[in-house]
Amino acid sequence: MIIVIKPDASEEAIEQLKNSIQDQGLIVQDIKGGNARMLGLAGDVSNVSPDTFSRSDIVESAFKVREPYKLAGRRFHPEDTVVSAGTAKIGGGHFAVIAGPCSVESEDQILSVAKDIAKSGAKLLRGGAFKPRSSPYSFHGLGLEGLELLKAAKQKTGLPIVSEILSQNHLDAFAEDVDVIQIGARNMQNFSLLVEVGKLKKPVLLKRGLSSTLEELLMSAEYLIKGGTDQVILCERGIRTFETATRNTLDLSAIPVLKQKSHLPVIADPSHGTGHWHLVEPLALAAVAAGADGLIIEVHNMPHKALCDGQQSITPEVFHHLMKKVNRVREAIKE
Amino acid sequence: MIIVIKPDASEEAIEQLKNSIQDQGLIVQDIKGGNARMLGLAGDVSNVSPDTFSRSDIVESAFKVREPYKLAGRRFHPEDTVVSAGTAKIGGGHFAVIAGPCSVESEDQILSVAKDIAKSGAKLLRGGAFKPRSSPYSFHGLGLEGLELLKAAKQKTGLPIVSEILSQNHLDAFAEDVDVIQIGARNMQNFSLLVEVGKLKKPVLLKRGLSSTLEELLMSAEYLIKGGTDQVILCERGIRTFETATRNTLDLSAIPVLKQKSHLPVIADPSHGTGHWHLVEPLALAAVAAGADGLIIEVHNMPHKALCDGQQSITPEVFHHLMKKVNRVREAIKE
Amino acid sequence: MIIVIKPDASEEAIEQLKNSIQDQGLIVQDIKGGNARMLGLAGDVSNVSPDTFSRSDIVESAFKVREPYKLAGRRFHPEDTVVSAGTAKIGGGHFAVIAGPCSVESEDQILSVAKDIAKSGAKLLRGGAFKPRSSPYSFHGLGLEGLELLKAAKQKTGLPIVSEILSQNHLDAFAEDVDVIQIGARNMQNFSLLVEVGKLKKPVLLKRGLSSTLEELLMSAEYLIKGGTDQVILCERGIRTFETATRNTLDLSAIPVLKQKSHLPVIADPSHGTGHWHLVEPLALAAVAAGADGLIIEVHNMPHKALCDGQQSITPEVFHHLMKKVNRVREAIKE
Amino acid sequence: MIIVIKPDASEEAIEQLKNSIQDQGLIVQDIKGGNARMLGLAGDVSNVSPDTFSRSDIVESAFKVREPYKLAGRRFHPEDTVVSAGTAKIGGGHFAVIAGPCSVESEDQILSVAKDIAKSGAKLLRGGAFKPRSSPYSFHGLGLEGLELLKAAKQKTGLPIVSEILSQNHLDAFAEDVDVIQIGARNMQNFSLLVEVGKLKKPVLLKRGLSSTLEELLMSAEYLIKGGTDQVILCERGIRTFETATRNTLDLSAIPVLKQKSHLPVIADPSHGTGHWHLVEPLALAAVAAGADGLIIEVHNMPHKALCDGQQSITPEVFHHLMKKVNRVREAIKE
Repeated sequence: MIIVIKPDASEEAIEQLKNSIQDQGLIVQDIKGGNARMLGLAGDVSNVSPDTFSRSDIVESAFKVREPYKLAGRRFHPEDTVVSAGTAKIGGGHFAVIAGPCSVESEDQILSVAKDIAKSGAKLLRGGAFKPRSSPYSFHGLGLEGLELLKAAKQKTGLPIVSEILSQNHLDAFAEDVDVIQIGARNMQNFSLLVEVGKLKKPVLLKRGLSSTLEELLMSAEYLIKGGTDQVILCERGIRTFETATRNTLDLSAIPVLKQKSHLPVIADPSHGTGHWHLVEPLALAAVAAGADGLIIEVHNMPHKALCDGQQSITPEVFHHLMKKVNRVREAIKE
Repeated sequence: MIIVIKPDASEEAIEQLKNSIQDQGLIVQDIKGGNARMLGLAGDVSNVSPDTFSRSDIVESAFKVREPYKLAGRRFHPEDTVVSAGTAKIGGGHFAVIAGPCSVESEDQILSVAKDIAKSGAKLLRGGAFKPRSSPYSFHGLGLEGLELLKAAKQKTGLPIVSEILSQNHLDAFAEDVDVIQIGARNMQNFSLLVEVGKLKKPVLLKRGLSSTLEELLMSAEYLIKGGTDQVILCERGIRTFETATRNTLDLSAIPVLKQKSHLPVIADPSHGTGHWHLVEPLALAAVAAGADGLIIEVHNMPHKALCDGQQSITPEVFHHLMKKVNRVREAIKE
Repeated sequence: MIIVIKPDASEEAIEQLKNSIQDQGLIVQDIKGGNARMLGLAGDVSNVSPDTFSRSDIVESAFKVREPYKLAGRRFHPEDTVVSAGTAKIGGGHFAVIAGPCSVESEDQILSVAKDIAKSGAKLLRGGAFKPRSSPYSFHGLGLEGLELLKAAKQKTGLPIVSEILSQNHLDAFAEDVDVIQIGARNMQNFSLLVEVGKLKKPVLLKRGLSSTLEELLMSAEYLIKGGTDQVILCERGIRTFETATRNTLDLSAIPVLKQKSHLPVIADPSHGTGHWHLVEPLALAAVAAGADGLIIEVHNMPHKALCDGQQSITPEVFHHLMKKVNRVREAIKE
Repeated sequence: MIIVIKPDASEEAIEQLKNSIQDQGLIVQDIKGGNARMLGLAGDVSNVSPDTFSRSDIVESAFKVREPYKLAGRRFHPEDTVVSAGTAKIGGGHFAVIAGPCSVESEDQILSVAKDIAKSGAKLLRGGAFKPRSSPYSFHGLGLEGLELLKAAKQKTGLPIVSEILSQNHLDAFAEDVDVIQIGARNMQNFSLLVEVGKLKKPVLLKRGLSSTLEELLMSAEYLIKGGTDQVILCERGIRTFETATRNTLDLSAIPVLKQKSHLPVIADPSHGTGHWHLVEPLALAAVAAGADGLIIEVHNMPHKALCDGQQSITPEVFHHLMKKVNRVREAIKE
């Protein structure tokens, strides 16, 4: 940690500050320069917050120089994590596409979509049983019945299931029925949910919050891993910016940045990231070119009749066509 | 709802679209202009999503022209809501300041602060028992013991208690011990928590999410009111922008905008909104001048030793001084 | 244009408003619905601002339903524009990479880089002679001498020159020496410069402003085209968001959105878009996969000694390697 | 400056880096800690960019610990600057309100408004002669004729004139006719204009760019002061965020932050900051309560007929009423 001292601080006050730091068992190094005076703190600073010092009258600023995550970071875990869910693997060279409708609507729908995407090469089936909607008047999903329909589709196609959990009340059902538990963007900092889901020791798909920094995303992954799950997939799904031409701004630089900082697999969601079905293909291909370990894409057999997110869902035919290009781009970027 | 038709759409296709809308029991009006063709939808469109139409090949865009909230809006509820919690009232001309430490740390601390702020004119006591922290390694509050200490402080001072709930597991405890249940910024769209808290029929302090629009804030209030609570206080606490000189960007225009659109009381949090104790006074006064119904301010007896948010907490002395100015500004803006 | 009427407006006031609109030679259509009353304006509304109506006591909101640009839009110009600069073509199926150092530093430097990038397949040479720097104390480029060195490099390699103009004082020099005049992000809304540059009737590379919407970018292109230049290249170079892990957030969805709305070629700048040299390759490939008509990349022979932007420049070797992958990705995304 | 070394760097490589820094005449201090190794640079680092080191294989990050501005900062200029323009003073305890129409439209209009605002207590007259508009089809002001009308209004009322310059071509006219030259938000980083305006040695009103940090605003002020003008007024006028309920998000925390970091006067523009006339009063009062040295407000005698920004202009009557409250709030916040 570095503490920048104000230029008008007295030597006496600086000495007092140094003593108080040393009293906490830390080593202080005094750094004097032409126009700056700093203190460098050494020792175990993991429990020391820069805020502790920001209050002091003689401190201009204080900050940590190392990232605050450990379990999610690559520093102490250099090799890639491979997440395994049923027959699917993701990360460490394994690439997987997750596809399916925004929400499970009926047995016909989910079976039809599941079969189609399996044929096209998807490795996992997504489907919402519980839907977070900004309006209390919107369709909120079929609930537990939705999970049953997903299980039926899994039985027919062999595709492991990805579904979003919204409430701690459903932990048991998700532990039993779902292969990869999704934490949605709006719950990325629902810390009590993170702690509970972590304890299930199952694969988790963690979506970046709408206004979350990559460091905050990794800190939420840290909660999950500390809780007991070392199987975490990070997902870039667009952040909120001033631009309104798209639903969100898909931040594809997040992919190489996260892969550099963390050992966890990183995927992208071009459906929520853009909000328009005709933008799904170009952004899906872009995510693959940027090095993503996978994609999560909304596919619906009748998008114009979808109960949710119809405008950003693609048809199985478009998905099939996209998967061919995805594979070609994967080949193209190989060393 | 307005549907803008693409310029190259055939009359046949437009006719088909109009018929399909009329089949849903809605009235369609055809609007032809020099360089635009639109359909105006009338009737009960509350369950009709613009997304349904965005997929159509002949539709350029579709959007609602009325706000999506009803219970939280002023349209059908023109008079101000007054929220009552114990001896305190807020809204409809009643002004109240909520103050106290970021987190409850000890009986001495909370009692000392509670007495001081009561003397200075605060009407409610805030204190965190459960703390949402971005790091799993930070101090997370005293938990249920923290609620007990808050109750002790209430007994001594008479100040009703405001505290943040993080988990559905604590609904019973909050229902019993807390006068105003706070929903934090990171849980503003934790819809399952909103539904459960709404059912308690208690006053709720709902903080704006870091990247939430005012419309989304009102939609979350709609969840609470629909759930059963008509006692909701809205709180502007800063949004996330590109600026790093402050912790967040306090959006004070939110105060008059919310008060125009909604009947609910609106308060501001200059502590989290700025992140620096020396900015609390100017922004607190600014919020009052902008028409806030109250403030929520972090006050700590020993900010430099606070376990949380010390850099943005003010001392009881500074708070006392601030309250005098707050009252003067309230007088100054009266008609 | 649509005018949404307030629910409590009297019929008399609405009638007055309708008459005042008709007096301007426009046609008004009255749209009555269950919970909304609107007026649809037809006729030539290009000179009518919605703001004119927003002041009225009975108007809730007013907005145009059609995009405000004409010359830059695809509506009246469906075929792709191909920009030609010397031997290079860009747009309409022509793909071109622009490369070179942030700033021209010496004859040796610019010649060395120009030869290297030409060998690797770059079609145009970029180099800054006048540099916009946030600090008055930073290196601001060699000025007119820089343009001379660029001309020397062009003579040796045949590569047309792209360079940024900062001041109207340099219009003559740029008209004579530069093949593609760059308008930087900070000048995207320097309207007097846009007007003057447009009059030169030369190819222009127009960079998106740090906080400009895509509509604003197209409106700035409209200034150029209206001024006299139909040769405009649009460039996505990253927008400013809350994320600090990268210098800017490269918005790759801008590529397909712009290509849909406009006939102008669209390129991406992964160097400024990310600010880190090791992110240039993944984001360059992603931009190509998203459908970009070209790239602009900072290449420096000795990035660690660069006078400007060294941390985001790649070496000629890395560029050579990247170009191979760029070509492979272009093949991969073909239908 | 601090250079953070990567954990796996060899001692040999660190030694080489230290030597290369010492070769530049700087002093290096080696800071070793539990989990961090840093180098502290002392001496004159004003011309040394952290980017120089970011390229190195053994460097994790490098950053300056001191602000990059000198002339605009309070460190070497602790006392407040007072800007004088004609009879008006602003800063250092002097408070002044600038008012007038968005654009000068006619002699009647500008005279009428000027007389009204002078009566209500405004100290300077604003009026746009050259208007920056995002569309080339909008009204762009009366140009030089507009300056003549402003001079006529000044002659009648004695109010000094504030007007925005858009082009270097008008430097002579502004030098002669205008008392305070305004640099608009879109030109805040038009560095060639800043340099030229600075040379005029006249008072300048510098508006914050839509996506400019406070540090960047101060760096642009640094350009002006270095150029020759020590009379610079800083203006917060709203930044661009995701919120669409207001035209911009007025960042009132900028006022106390700027006043702490700089000796220059700081004013706020609640008209552009909100974009809605009914929000001007609450935000104007809030800015005063936050410590602003003044305000700039759009006042129009017939806002519903204004050629520009009518929706955010207030009438002279509303302005008169507002000024009374402004004065009361100024009294209320005095110590």
